[in-house]
Amino acid sequence: MPSRFLRALRREPIDCTPVWLMRQAGRYLPEYRATRARAGDFLTLCKTPELACEVTLQPLKRFPLDAAILFSDILTIPDAMGLGLVLDEGVGPRLKHPLTTPDQLTRIGQPDPERELRYVTDAVRLIKRELQGHTPLIGFAGSPWTLATYMIEGGSDRDFKRTKAWLYGAPEALHRLLAILAEAVTQYLNAQIAAGVEAVMIFDTWGGALTTPAYQEFSLTYMRKIVAGLSSGTPSIVFTKGGGMWLEYIAATGCTTVGLDWSTDIGAARRRIGAQVSLQGNLDPAILRAPIPRLEQEIDTILAGYGSGSGHVFNLGHGITPDIDPEQVGAMVERVHLASRAFHVQP
Amino acid sequence: MPSRFLRALRREPIDCTPVWLMRQAGRYLPEYRATRARAGDFLTLCKTPELACEVTLQPLKRFPLDAAILFSDILTIPDAMGLGLVLDEGVGPRLKHPLTTPDQLTRIGQPDPERELRYVTDAVRLIKRELQGHTPLIGFAGSPWTLATYMIEGGSDRDFKRTKAWLYGAPEALHRLLAILAEAVTQYLNAQIAAGVEAVMIFDTWGGALTTPAYQEFSLTYMRKIVAGLSSGTPSIVFTKGGGMWLEYIAATGCTTVGLDWSTDIGAARRRIGAQVSLQGNLDPAILRAPIPRLEQEIDTILAGYGSGSGHVFNLGHGITPDIDPEQVGAMVERVHLASRAFHVQP
Repeated sequence: MPSRFLRALRREPIDCTPVWLMRQAGRYLPEYRATRARAGDFLTLCKTPELACEVTLQPLKRFPLDAAILFSDILTIPDAMGLGLVLDEGVGPRLKHPLTTPDQLTRIGQPDPERELRYVTDAVRLIKRELQGHTPLIGFAGSPWTLATYMIEGGSDRDFKRTKAWLYGAPEALHRLLAILAEAVTQYLNAQIAAGVEAVMIFDTWGGALTTPAYQEFSLTYMRKIVAGLSSGTPSIVFTKGGGMWLEYIAATGCTTVGLDWSTDIGAARRRIGAQVSLQGNLDPAILRAPIPRLEQEIDTILAGYGSGSGHVFNLGHGITPDIDPEQVGAMVERVHLASRAFHVQP
Repeated sequence: MPSRFLRALRREPIDCTPVWLMRQAGRYLPEYRATRARAGDFLTLCKTPELACEVTLQPLKRFPLDAAILFSDILTIPDAMGLGLVLDEGVGPRLKHPLTTPDQLTRIGQPDPERELRYVTDAVRLIKRELQGHTPLIGFAGSPWTLATYMIEGGSDRDFKRTKAWLYGAPEALHRLLAILAEAVTQYLNAQIAAGVEAVMIFDTWGGALTTPAYQEFSLTYMRKIVAGLSSGTPSIVFTKGGGMWLEYIAATGCTTVGLDWSTDIGAARRRIGAQVSLQGNLDPAILRAPIPRLEQEIDTILAGYGSGSGHVFNLGHGITPDIDPEQVGAMVERVHLASRAFHVQP
């Protein structure tokens, strides 16, 4: 019988609401920091399947989480395209060789996921072997728009000046780049699926920086292509941070599940798109610093906001931050499982 | 006869759509940089009425803008409360003496706008004299929530860790601070109105970082109080960056006008709240870097998105950035005035 997580994605009956956390394998865990120190640097950790496997499994050993998510980074694709990823935790990720002008697009070719990104699929195979089918594994990739911003800016820019200069001044070049990325992401996710992941998530971290028509043209179009190109039957979760106004558009990509950031009211979201898709989210990560009773109250509010029946995967509205006490995560997971039983028909 | 700008706020017939720009007196203008250099630093520029007046008027000398906005900073109130504002352009604003714990609230008293903030009302009186009634003048303040984030963080923090620790862990203390700020902002805006501003704008720059219920409880409530406390008849513009999902709530504050950031579709916004309020916005500031024909196309799309009739004040969806060529601003203002005539009944 498929897991609670996979059944919730498909809105099939479950006993309680499944829960996992974005960035659940991360710096808030002392055992992660130890492995990271052993690896020497973040990129080595990503690129060494044994170590990526080890940190992927760490949170599952502490908490009864309903899904594992592959430990990796969204910028593995630009790195495989030769842009030279530099990951120093604390500052944001950087690419050493960004695309400074549209004519540099000729530098960009399709990576072969089983060659340049072999370390990722190897990690998936290792993790799958360790999980022994007990917990489903989620694969992921960045959205083409989000990857393009890093490839053009060379890092993060609050205003996306360079990327928007392409968008408004050289839209054909940006479309060429996005088409290449959509194909690369599709192949990459399908390689992860072939290696064993049971669901995939697309992180559109910077889609919210766009106008509504630009979001549709430059981000959504390419996510729709990726979803349509996934190996048949694999559920997909699409998450645009700051995309609360655009839930209907996201649901119409054909994805299985829409990820919600914390600013969105989950009850309103279900009324808008709950007939078509399941929902994932959306606790404010900041509340993990609050006293447990307040944390539990907020969890209850979100569970009640979604209401009765399947179709909700509990999560944060964004990644967990490094300063969180793991005890708080334990309390959160326990509360979700316990308090959500009232919203499901018990066998 | 009141100006085109004031008539548009009240949805009264006009000949074409009025336009002004958030941060229109700013670093993109060489004459601003010259005055700023003369002042020595940004805070002196803010606190010297003659210089604040001079830079307020600079963009009006270049472009046929429909409104002037007082040159100042939203953090004048925390500064008047003794938190010690430090404004170094390039890095964000900082407060030297932030509220590190809730018990420090005893440090905070109500500033008298005609004493501690006299430099602001003096600037308003000077600007009014210079404008000679030709162009309306907008006053402004930060929202209590936005001011509280700076007062607690001491500056900007992407995750608002400290402020959210109050919100989730000591909500009564945060409410006390917000109540003090709402009263201070009301008095401050009323002092600006008494000195001559004809409309006021409330900048809720960081409201979008909240969950929907927290936005209502900790930001919207206090903006509603301010709007209700304004000297009668003065139009008010409320702008929450990232608040596109909450337009109905913002319109229900009783404000005259809702400011839109660029991610919001203005046509959809008018359908949602256009029967109650006028709208201001919402060009993506990044498009000011694009070739003129593309810029004009985007302006036309926004004008057509709003559609026929009064009730639209054209603006950016956020402040203009320092790298913009002033020529582009001239082209924008001209296009708005020209292309919008088709949407208004000509006398």
